[in-house]
Amino acid sequence: MPETVKAAVLVEPGRLEIQGFPRPEIEEGAMLVKPLMCGICGTDKHGYNGEAVQYAGTPREVNGPYPAIPGHENVGEIVEMRQTKSESLKDFYGKELKEGDRIVISPDIMCGKCYWCKHSFGYTWCDNIRSYGHLESSVPPHIFGGWGELMYVFPGSHIFKISDEVSNEIGVLAEPMAVTYPLDIAKGHSSLPHEGFSSGDTVVVYGVGPLGLCHLIKARLLGAGKVVAIDKSEYRLKFCKDYGADYTLNVDNTTAEERRQLILDITDGRGADVVIECAGVKEVLVEGIEMLRQGGTFIEVGHFVDVGEVKLNPHRHLCAKNIRLIGQMNLCYTGMMPSIQLMMANRDRFDFDGIITHKFPFTQSLKGLLKSMEPDCMKVAIIP
Amino acid sequence: MPETVKAAVLVEPGRLEIQGFPRPEIEEGAMLVKPLMCGICGTDKHGYNGEAVQYAGTPREVNGPYPAIPGHENVGEIVEMRQTKSESLKDFYGKELKEGDRIVISPDIMCGKCYWCKHSFGYTWCDNIRSYGHLESSVPPHIFGGWGELMYVFPGSHIFKISDEVSNEIGVLAEPMAVTYPLDIAKGHSSLPHEGFSSGDTVVVYGVGPLGLCHLIKARLLGAGKVVAIDKSEYRLKFCKDYGADYTLNVDNTTAEERRQLILDITDGRGADVVIECAGVKEVLVEGIEMLRQGGTFIEVGHFVDVGEVKLNPHRHLCAKNIRLIGQMNLCYTGMMPSIQLMMANRDRFDFDGIITHKFPFTQSLKGLLKSMEPDCMKVAIIP
Amino acid sequence: MPETVKAAVLVEPGRLEIQGFPRPEIEEGAMLVKPLMCGICGTDKHGYNGEAVQYAGTPREVNGPYPAIPGHENVGEIVEMRQTKSESLKDFYGKELKEGDRIVISPDIMCGKCYWCKHSFGYTWCDNIRSYGHLESSVPPHIFGGWGELMYVFPGSHIFKISDEVSNEIGVLAEPMAVTYPLDIAKGHSSLPHEGFSSGDTVVVYGVGPLGLCHLIKARLLGAGKVVAIDKSEYRLKFCKDYGADYTLNVDNTTAEERRQLILDITDGRGADVVIECAGVKEVLVEGIEMLRQGGTFIEVGHFVDVGEVKLNPHRHLCAKNIRLIGQMNLCYTGMMPSIQLMMANRDRFDFDGIITHKFPFTQSLKGLLKSMEPDCMKVAIIP
Amino acid sequence: MPETVKAAVLVEPGRLEIQGFPRPEIEEGAMLVKPLMCGICGTDKHGYNGEAVQYAGTPREVNGPYPAIPGHENVGEIVEMRQTKSESLKDFYGKELKEGDRIVISPDIMCGKCYWCKHSFGYTWCDNIRSYGHLESSVPPHIFGGWGELMYVFPGSHIFKISDEVSNEIGVLAEPMAVTYPLDIAKGHSSLPHEGFSSGDTVVVYGVGPLGLCHLIKARLLGAGKVVAIDKSEYRLKFCKDYGADYTLNVDNTTAEERRQLILDITDGRGADVVIECAGVKEVLVEGIEMLRQGGTFIEVGHFVDVGEVKLNPHRHLCAKNIRLIGQMNLCYTGMMPSIQLMMANRDRFDFDGIITHKFPFTQSLKGLLKSMEPDCMKVAIIP
Repeated sequence: MPETVKAAVLVEPGRLEIQGFPRPEIEEGAMLVKPLMCGICGTDKHGYNGEAVQYAGTPREVNGPYPAIPGHENVGEIVEMRQTKSESLKDFYGKELKEGDRIVISPDIMCGKCYWCKHSFGYTWCDNIRSYGHLESSVPPHIFGGWGELMYVFPGSHIFKISDEVSNEIGVLAEPMAVTYPLDIAKGHSSLPHEGFSSGDTVVVYGVGPLGLCHLIKARLLGAGKVVAIDKSEYRLKFCKDYGADYTLNVDNTTAEERRQLILDITDGRGADVVIECAGVKEVLVEGIEMLRQGGTFIEVGHFVDVGEVKLNPHRHLCAKNIRLIGQMNLCYTGMMPSIQLMMANRDRFDFDGIITHKFPFTQSLKGLLKSMEPDCMKVAIIP
Repeated sequence: MPETVKAAVLVEPGRLEIQGFPRPEIEEGAMLVKPLMCGICGTDKHGYNGEAVQYAGTPREVNGPYPAIPGHENVGEIVEMRQTKSESLKDFYGKELKEGDRIVISPDIMCGKCYWCKHSFGYTWCDNIRSYGHLESSVPPHIFGGWGELMYVFPGSHIFKISDEVSNEIGVLAEPMAVTYPLDIAKGHSSLPHEGFSSGDTVVVYGVGPLGLCHLIKARLLGAGKVVAIDKSEYRLKFCKDYGADYTLNVDNTTAEERRQLILDITDGRGADVVIECAGVKEVLVEGIEMLRQGGTFIEVGHFVDVGEVKLNPHRHLCAKNIRLIGQMNLCYTGMMPSIQLMMANRDRFDFDGIITHKFPFTQSLKGLLKSMEPDCMKVAIIP
Repeated sequence: MPETVKAAVLVEPGRLEIQGFPRPEIEEGAMLVKPLMCGICGTDKHGYNGEAVQYAGTPREVNGPYPAIPGHENVGEIVEMRQTKSESLKDFYGKELKEGDRIVISPDIMCGKCYWCKHSFGYTWCDNIRSYGHLESSVPPHIFGGWGELMYVFPGSHIFKISDEVSNEIGVLAEPMAVTYPLDIAKGHSSLPHEGFSSGDTVVVYGVGPLGLCHLIKARLLGAGKVVAIDKSEYRLKFCKDYGADYTLNVDNTTAEERRQLILDITDGRGADVVIECAGVKEVLVEGIEMLRQGGTFIEVGHFVDVGEVKLNPHRHLCAKNIRLIGQMNLCYTGMMPSIQLMMANRDRFDFDGIITHKFPFTQSLKGLLKSMEPDCMKVAIIP
Repeated sequence: MPETVKAAVLVEPGRLEIQGFPRPEIEEGAMLVKPLMCGICGTDKHGYNGEAVQYAGTPREVNGPYPAIPGHENVGEIVEMRQTKSESLKDFYGKELKEGDRIVISPDIMCGKCYWCKHSFGYTWCDNIRSYGHLESSVPPHIFGGWGELMYVFPGSHIFKISDEVSNEIGVLAEPMAVTYPLDIAKGHSSLPHEGFSSGDTVVVYGVGPLGLCHLIKARLLGAGKVVAIDKSEYRLKFCKDYGADYTLNVDNTTAEERRQLILDITDGRGADVVIECAGVKEVLVEGIEMLRQGGTFIEVGHFVDVGEVKLNPHRHLCAKNIRLIGQMNLCYTGMMPSIQLMMANRDRFDFDGIITHKFPFTQSLKGLLKSMEPDCMKVAIIP
């Protein structure tokens, strides 16, 4: 086995280069994993552009850090592992782990001891959160991201062993699909008449990159009626048509008023039941609420990084329509495996593998990253 | 137009015959409708067998009545209507109605004035409920069921106008599909970790006649993982395979213990997340709970008529496993149109029309009714 | 009985005067009611100041109207009524009504026929909503508000007959107490760990006029732990101390940062679980979210009229903290009687009558209205 | 410090005696605690009577065990503790622990590694659950219950440090009060009109020993309207009157039909909204459902041990009324501290300390246990 591990490093905004790291000794309970496929996420793009403030206003607020090896949507193969004295290493479902196993790795490692770890569940609200792809590569054992030859997996990581029939692509999609959790929450609110997300509801998704597409598919899988996709990429809108969108709207060809009017037209003048903001464009907050029906649900899941402020009218946008708003960033790790199960149970219906439209070896990470910023791709992934 | 209206009448248990009735004058706000397709329901079969006590223990408790023209899952065409002075007749969604329109008719008519009509919503808990197919045909205007040439539709009925693209079959299925509402409720409970009905959950359906099949499909449409169908009809089990069941179990070939073991096997020893009782077999209550995981949800929707008692252990079956149980009979009328929307949005996935396996003209109602009691059919319908 | 009915009329912003109207003939199903007590609400004050845009962005958007007889929080005595031919007049609970009965009148009259009346429940989302106190007094039968000698009550109004033991004061408070419905919704969300409103939670109420005080009391009655009141009126803050506030903060003596720090201090640095905006001050939206813990619930119920825009950061204020936001204006009429029951069941604990601090005869309505705008009052009411 | 630790041991059904045990060496992360007060629970009484099957039908099913030192509702003082190498011992809220601290100890210790520990939250569904008061005293370090001089507290126990103002009594009540969690769940279901537990609802509690009384108080604290207590002990019924019951019914003076009639009378003929079974009497399941309104919620929390079967009619008791049933045994440990906070926030309203009506030194445990089986006591506690 090589003594030097090569990986792509985001040294600072705008500078991504291949570096070598010493192959680390592994501590008890840890593993070395060979990345098989690693999705490029919106936060990776933002990080390259220097927009790297996350969790603003919480104790976990971070900026960057730089340098770091990107890559947190990981499917890999266990290359080396070190058992603890007291018990064998197991995945999140109690399945024994061994070298050669193919696994999905949840992006976040929780401390298990802070207030949030003891009192909340599923969400990654840990005070001492560590996230693959967002850890300083200058600190040993260095290799904390999926864009490289090997990746160090800490003890206590959430690991999901996958069977042969689960493709790498579905493994990579487990993470963005788990981000769609607010749709599950909205389902939970739908017991109240005309609140939340009910069977047959009209759902609008703003911004249909991979995250938006996952929301669109999830809406379909949870019983949506009409689904509308809005984006500026014709490529992505066509993509959505193939994955179940009934209507697509290009923001370059339509005005906000025309978009609102279409939504009113297809809902007998009432407005959408659910609007999901996945664009990361702050103005969509107001535009989206304006096309929501009274009592509708707005899901704000597109602003994983800080891109500034927008003006809002508390009467018109919050009270007058009795809106419900669910904000979320990051994901519920408890939703990773259910997301895989959901995709596997609906493989006959959706070509999940096809969502990974481009693959680049990690040595060409920059090329992959730049590709992911163009309009004519869906999920771009890094491979060995 | 004929002055005499022919219809099938269930005169008493075991006696179904064709009778003639005078074509009625219609009151303000009422309509005459030509039935295009009318599903045969489990309660119709029970009624023929004399098991006709419904709503036992509530103010609405009824037995029968006899004689009555059966048929409450109706799609029809408006033949004649009489507007009210103050406003035009509209459907439940505010759409204008006119002769020639194709409509779905909700089985129950509510008084709109009693405590329940004012305080609850969607459910048909009305103190003065009147239900098509269950009204005495000896009382004018007589023709209150779908098994005949014409049907009288009272003012205040819940009417759903359907477009040309909605087939009669889907219209008929709106009613049993709306009965699956407990799955929506269970979705609402799933915000609590490991309660209710979550994405990827294992769902068992006991009794897969038309109602059980609707639950199976609905479970799929709301994001189930593995779905198991249990029945004694090989025909129906095969049917379920085509509509998304991952496993089928024939109660004639397996013991209760074997069935429980299979469920444990496919859930890593934990038991099913959701068990739905659609068989109307009282022993299934205990057998179903025994195969439920702790914290699982049991949906009891199969006992629309009274078929007696069963022994239950409050510790073992209710407390020890922290079970949640949702009982329901009848349906939410507010779920009728969403059910149609849900089916229309998933026509590419499920052949809903194919669920109506047999059709008989109303003049052969008895033949149809007897067919519906045999194991080699799914939904049997009455046509003109 | 007098042939002329005197009432206070808000002729235009800033002009309130006593006028005389002809005593109306009543239509079938209608009533004439003598107002016994009528609360002055925030929208009355806004209307006097010309801030009268309500339901902005919905089909129900209104401005004013002027002239109108104010008064929608009404307790009255039936003076005259006209039965319908088919049945006797009953209240919302099916209780027979007769002259001399004391009743609470829900402010809104619904059409019962539009989409929203058929598909939603409880909320007053009716397309054709009419609201007492907000109907043009120039249109016969003119007397549509509680600030006068008599009030015309339309057929189809939601009427709640009250027994002798229910004071007029509690009757008046039924309306603002029913506005606290978002706390019930938040209770419903609390099944998810650390979401919604759970037992023992820390609740902050911004703006503790009558509506804020009702939220404070409701929070207590639904199991809050620590409750914090924030206002600029020392009188109102002292009032809150007597009604269960653990902490009070005067915005004139503290900075936003000091207020946030206090909330952090009493929550071990985590922030409030629930923040309720009842001040109608748009800047509170951001200040309140800043003091919310991650996963906390923000209730926006203070902006019944349009007072402009505020800047918000979608990342920091919505996503980063995973907040849930419930907007509401107006109330659920189905919550009126439960609110009365709740107050009656807790009379030993809270002096509800004492919340009505000032009473003025309707001939002194202007004096009462001006009083209600001063800081040293709680609920001001109009009496005969 | 003594080298021998005395404690009461339930050697076998019907035989409780004082034994001596060697004072144990404590492992890393463990503590020795001096019990200050320990409540006697229904399972203790059942255990004495030989009814000791718990968790029947789950992987955790146990019978007994015998011999064991009873006592799982514990408040104690830390006498000795052994820090781990890596970090200081903390309570569930992250508060540092030291000798002399007064603590509440959650009855159950979870493994933290099994499927249930990773996938559920709050509930004690752990495959490897260990419960104080139910561990074999023949196995070192022996002293696993609160009825003695000292108690061994395992690493990983859920510990709640309490301040001076929290009385021992309130500390003891944290456990039974946390058992009332189904009322919180039912609150969560109440967003649906007329389901779950809404403000102003009528609540019936069957069996008002300490657990029933806790439910009665919790119902009050969460906004119940009328509350009815049913028991055979006049002492307990009087007790309930003082703690907020509006009606009390003695099963020795009334027939089941009379009790049902009273419930109908006070609910305008509709039945109770919520019925809670805390009696552990299996026949109450049917009697309670018979007095429930349609759509009502039945909470079955009284059968912590197996006492046999009862006959139930699936149509009449589950379907016809659309009932919702929540079964629970044991408790959510996450509810312990919120329960304390809830009691502390309502001390002015309820005399919680007064619920502990009798106290016996552990040397008189048998006397205490026998007392707790008599009708003229509420919670009996063991003290040093």
